[in-house]
Amino acid sequence: MKKIVYIFCTCALIIFFTSVLVMPSYGSEKEQDIDMSKLSSKSKRCLGCHANATPGIVEDWYTSLHSRTTPRMGLAREKIESRISAESVKEELSENFVGCYECHSLNVEQHKDSFNHFGLKINVVVSPKDCAICHPTEEKEYAPSKKGYAVSNLEKNAVFKTLVDTVISLKEVREGKVVALGVSETTKMDTCYGCHGTEVKVTGTKRISSGPLTLTVPDLQNWPNQGVGRINPDGSRGACSSCHPRHSFSIEIARKPYTCAQCHLEPDVPAWNVYKESKHANIYSSKYHDWDFNTVPWELGKDIKAPSCATCHNSLLTTPKGKVIVPRTHDFGARLWVRIFGLVYTHPQPKSGDTSIIKNKDGLPLPTDFTGNLAAEYLIDDQEQQSRQDQMMGICITCHGTNWVQMHFAKLDATIKETDKMALNATLLLTNAWEKNLADNTNPFDETIEQQWITQWLFYANSIRYASAMTGAPDYATFKNGWWEMTRNLKGMEDWINLHQ
Amino acid sequence: MKKIVYIFCTCALIIFFTSVLVMPSYGSEKEQDIDMSKLSSKSKRCLGCHANATPGIVEDWYTSLHSRTTPRMGLAREKIESRISAESVKEELSENFVGCYECHSLNVEQHKDSFNHFGLKINVVVSPKDCAICHPTEEKEYAPSKKGYAVSNLEKNAVFKTLVDTVISLKEVREGKVVALGVSETTKMDTCYGCHGTEVKVTGTKRISSGPLTLTVPDLQNWPNQGVGRINPDGSRGACSSCHPRHSFSIEIARKPYTCAQCHLEPDVPAWNVYKESKHANIYSSKYHDWDFNTVPWELGKDIKAPSCATCHNSLLTTPKGKVIVPRTHDFGARLWVRIFGLVYTHPQPKSGDTSIIKNKDGLPLPTDFTGNLAAEYLIDDQEQQSRQDQMMGICITCHGTNWVQMHFAKLDATIKETDKMALNATLLLTNAWEKNLADNTNPFDETIEQQWITQWLFYANSIRYASAMTGAPDYATFKNGWWEMTRNLKGMEDWINLHQ
Amino acid sequence: MKKIVYIFCTCALIIFFTSVLVMPSYGSEKEQDIDMSKLSSKSKRCLGCHANATPGIVEDWYTSLHSRTTPRMGLAREKIESRISAESVKEELSENFVGCYECHSLNVEQHKDSFNHFGLKINVVVSPKDCAICHPTEEKEYAPSKKGYAVSNLEKNAVFKTLVDTVISLKEVREGKVVALGVSETTKMDTCYGCHGTEVKVTGTKRISSGPLTLTVPDLQNWPNQGVGRINPDGSRGACSSCHPRHSFSIEIARKPYTCAQCHLEPDVPAWNVYKESKHANIYSSKYHDWDFNTVPWELGKDIKAPSCATCHNSLLTTPKGKVIVPRTHDFGARLWVRIFGLVYTHPQPKSGDTSIIKNKDGLPLPTDFTGNLAAEYLIDDQEQQSRQDQMMGICITCHGTNWVQMHFAKLDATIKETDKMALNATLLLTNAWEKNLADNTNPFDETIEQQWITQWLFYANSIRYASAMTGAPDYATFKNGWWEMTRNLKGMEDWINLHQ
Repeated sequence: MKKIVYIFCTCALIIFFTSVLVMPSYGSEKEQDIDMSKLSSKSKRCLGCHANATPGIVEDWYTSLHSRTTPRMGLAREKIESRISAESVKEELSENFVGCYECHSLNVEQHKDSFNHFGLKINVVVSPKDCAICHPTEEKEYAPSKKGYAVSNLEKNAVFKTLVDTVISLKEVREGKVVALGVSETTKMDTCYGCHGTEVKVTGTKRISSGPLTLTVPDLQNWPNQGVGRINPDGSRGACSSCHPRHSFSIEIARKPYTCAQCHLEPDVPAWNVYKESKHANIYSSKYHDWDFNTVPWELGKDIKAPSCATCHNSLLTTPKGKVIVPRTHDFGARLWVRIFGLVYTHPQPKSGDTSIIKNKDGLPLPTDFTGNLAAEYLIDDQEQQSRQDQMMGICITCHGTNWVQMHFAKLDATIKETDKMALNATLLLTNAWEKNLADNTNPFDETIEQQWITQWLFYANSIRYASAMTGAPDYATFKNGWWEMTRNLKGMEDWINLHQ
Repeated sequence: MKKIVYIFCTCALIIFFTSVLVMPSYGSEKEQDIDMSKLSSKSKRCLGCHANATPGIVEDWYTSLHSRTTPRMGLAREKIESRISAESVKEELSENFVGCYECHSLNVEQHKDSFNHFGLKINVVVSPKDCAICHPTEEKEYAPSKKGYAVSNLEKNAVFKTLVDTVISLKEVREGKVVALGVSETTKMDTCYGCHGTEVKVTGTKRISSGPLTLTVPDLQNWPNQGVGRINPDGSRGACSSCHPRHSFSIEIARKPYTCAQCHLEPDVPAWNVYKESKHANIYSSKYHDWDFNTVPWELGKDIKAPSCATCHNSLLTTPKGKVIVPRTHDFGARLWVRIFGLVYTHPQPKSGDTSIIKNKDGLPLPTDFTGNLAAEYLIDDQEQQSRQDQMMGICITCHGTNWVQMHFAKLDATIKETDKMALNATLLLTNAWEKNLADNTNPFDETIEQQWITQWLFYANSIRYASAMTGAPDYATFKNGWWEMTRNLKGMEDWINLHQ
Repeated sequence: MKKIVYIFCTCALIIFFTSVLVMPSYGSEKEQDIDMSKLSSKSKRCLGCHANATPGIVEDWYTSLHSRTTPRMGLAREKIESRISAESVKEELSENFVGCYECHSLNVEQHKDSFNHFGLKINVVVSPKDCAICHPTEEKEYAPSKKGYAVSNLEKNAVFKTLVDTVISLKEVREGKVVALGVSETTKMDTCYGCHGTEVKVTGTKRISSGPLTLTVPDLQNWPNQGVGRINPDGSRGACSSCHPRHSFSIEIARKPYTCAQCHLEPDVPAWNVYKESKHANIYSSKYHDWDFNTVPWELGKDIKAPSCATCHNSLLTTPKGKVIVPRTHDFGARLWVRIFGLVYTHPQPKSGDTSIIKNKDGLPLPTDFTGNLAAEYLIDDQEQQSRQDQMMGICITCHGTNWVQMHFAKLDATIKETDKMALNATLLLTNAWEKNLADNTNPFDETIEQQWITQWLFYANSIRYASAMTGAPDYATFKNGWWEMTRNLKGMEDWINLHQ
């Protein structure tokens, strides 16, 4: 009799746990599911108020792995499955879940935004250097990359700065003339620096009212701010929350293409727009609900059947049999051999993420001169280019035949050459206009024919390259910002010259 | 022995019901799941034919709460959880599910589209006044709002009407000149009035063939029509089905952003385009499958982790602990303090949803004059503006710190000022052209430099404001319809004047 | 006692299978779930290497019905539920699952891309004729359709070829003039022919390295290539993988709108862009996770509540009671009566999918002459037009009243007439410019006013028609590529003439 009950209960338990196992295991955690004994008393204090003051933040954190993982648990995993890259984590942090206080209290001595908050010394901004306590490899890869230098690469490059200032400065009409008045900090944050990031400065403290309370908090400038190259109050560069937003620190969100879509957008960087209309994205959009974006390592073919941005550009990938296809990187240019957007001509990727150090033969901080000759010493060499392309091809051949892949990249090479030539054509017409004094090259970005020249390379040539690179969205190579526009634009420049001379 | 069977069955039932509970409870109802005893005999008659004649409508209704809820069941709920706002519902309606006949038979005496359909007196169009039998608060809020007046706000405003007529009138080329021929009703419905709505008029009856049957039905003009300001055959304004489409009357669909996306689109109202590329939408798109869009009240942080349009603009929100963050409203402007699109300059929200009554100092029905001075008496005052902004901030601080929120809105204020100035610049150049007789201001919307002026405020200034307001999609403030276009456009206007004088 | 155990086990099994049944049955198959005894030994040999060489392909195939269905199993189904259209399949294929070898080894004698691969004679490209072994009806419908002829309809049409060559040829600036240099094969594949397809030619063999191996494979030109009209190495036309991508051969993916979105894109074919912002797509996007895209037949109202592209254009649809609404077709023009894009004026659908045979009264291969008169003998007649429109209306009335549907199509008719008139206006202005020798009509596509003329019909008139046809996305009929742009463009053409004469 007891045996029957035993058998029954066993079976019922098996059925029950089976049903639990097929339920989604991410994103469904709630307060009651958290083992509060593993949360530090200080983080419990935070939750005590913030569950009322900012419940959205607290609920978001409940969905994170941080709310149910101690560093020790992370360290105990097999290397290939590990989500933390530290070899060890200091004792006082390793036994608690990664709560509010654990992250907001790190390196306070470096943090100019550190303040006393109800008896706890905390920082407003959690910086990559703070995250590096557990995730040092990611920070080490990111900080010296182009994304890490995204602010100074704009700010310290006189050419880019002129372009930015010309575009976003407030204007005024004086006696029928449009006059530039200069750029405001708020418009910088709305525009270029919204993606690139700005420097979060601490100018003192201020008093704010929050519900019944009045608090003294650091007075931050350029805040809120989640640009990829944000300069933090501890001097570090970057914002992990750009891609792992807020308090879920989700790998799933970072791996889904909507994250990259925030900045890599038409017309200047139409990666998302092109991807969205590609065969890869067709399969992604149709089937991603059946896929797994949370596994580490990410098994290509099994967890996902078609790539998102992260698949090709940074994730650790293995085959379903566990063979590593490509290691993880948080230098998002590390697998790229050529730069296809943002500049007049394509060129090998720069050696350093700090591109403001580049000098072309005219002494300008640009990877090519005005007709496309490379500033070669600042750019990766052929061998490095080949090695990176081979790595990328290694991803492609997981799902495509070798011949297919080779011919795909040969097509891209040819397209790069043709679009560079089409950009050069615009340059030659512009030079022609300058030589005839129809326009003034003091500022090369502010007159109509100069704006036409900019669209040729910044909007059209790049769209075609993206469409070719992803073999998708043929319209982005044709009528939508593609060959149609390049051809029309050259004619328009020719017309403009004829009309004004 | 019996005891064992009993224990076993109990356990099995628990497991069974547990598995049922984790299944999606919305959108999966079918005919066999409906308790037909609670359906009125008249609605059963409707279903009898329409399950064959228009099975899509019937199947859609099966997924609705209407198909399994009586008004009495709705009334029995706690106020905060209630989906109906009536204090009571008349006896003959309260015990039946909300079927075909229950809605299509209301207020027949006011309905010019009422007709005898196989012995039942019914109306073709179900109007907000009909819905108000159970949902009176919603109708009371909606009808006097800008959406409620969306038709007359276009039709009765001479300035807007000129713009509309200029844009959508059919043209003809006569002796090399483009001549306007006037606007057709069909093109009105395809364009502006597709969103704004039109008046559904009954011009008599007509005979139609449907399968083996020939029926006499009301002859409706301007039908089909689901514009937000539709004038219905009972004289009421609005179409609940604009946002709660068809016969599922879904709160889920209305809360998802695709509903608003139908009309709030680039280039003139790029709310959806900007949202889609924001961090909010990144999180939404990555995770919404795990969220709940059907709960009332909507628990911010628990049911959803990032806002959709409805979250900030109209839903009843509570914290996970049940504190009301903001009450529900069906006046979609009720939480807005400033109007950032559709007019030359930003301005405080109008006091009345009927904006055709506004007069600026030049006597025109516009909230500002030609250089931006406010028609202040028709617009909400500073105090009301502050109160509305406070309400919106109250939503933001559920997930963001107070300082973050305050600085976000300070940035938006600065951006509003700058974009107004950039619109003014275009106005000054246009005035310049008019003064020099290079263009004729009889119709301010039909010449090239006038069209350039329109794009400055209708397409570009507004895009930047949306991008700033949602701290997202920096490209919409930069290269995509943002500062790049505003700057290029001012230069283009200057060029046009130089070329034509 | 035994009885109790028996009852218990029975119940547990019922619960278990119930829980299995509610799990998604598609897209979740894995290697271990496949009955390998039904896989041919040759296909097992393929898997042996390719599970390592191209695991993504193998994993994709595991999710397909092919990996768990023999042709005999398909043939055994009721006709209406059958996914294969063959009456019988030859014995040697009928008992095995549809594996690698089964598809890649067909009709080798016709395949110029046939080669010996580790002892197996296989083809690189699987063509529609190969698929036709089991799916002959689909091939018979597709091959003679406009999609089937998509390559030659561009290549053999002198007018289209001139347009294509003008747009996508590489240019050079010589003495301030832009000169066309000709079109490369790679740019053809990036652009027009990316969607239309190209001819996959076999030029010999080549040696490639793949991992540790060196292989001899056919040397294919114009590869990779999934254009809808691809000319295959066996001489057949089309690529089933255009819409049923890769090795899942998914009906779900083909039925979801992202498939069509790859090519039917703004600005020249904005079907996807308009659909996306329509009420149909609002409902689709909000609810498609609850719908079934895998059932055959597809029950409108039950499986789905709002249409995707495939619903209206090609799928076999039934009512929930099993009545056929419309049969399946793989001629995607078969339900269309009018062609609303891609040409200067709308016109009845061509009789033949091979449109290069059309001659208008001027002898050009176009369905109308320069002012819109029909080349009627090549186009379907009124009766055929009506019959196709009736079929489409038959789909609409599943969810909409007869009156609603009739008035919708009446609106579309009116819009077609108005947009044709607006295109004619542009033609008249262009003719005017030609007559005044302001432009040269030798090539009607390469000067600025000619480009303006093209945008009128290729980008704007068509956008409005799509918006009208789907009663959605009013902005695509208004400010976004709609009446605003048509009106502005006519003024621009008038201005251009005035400025240049």
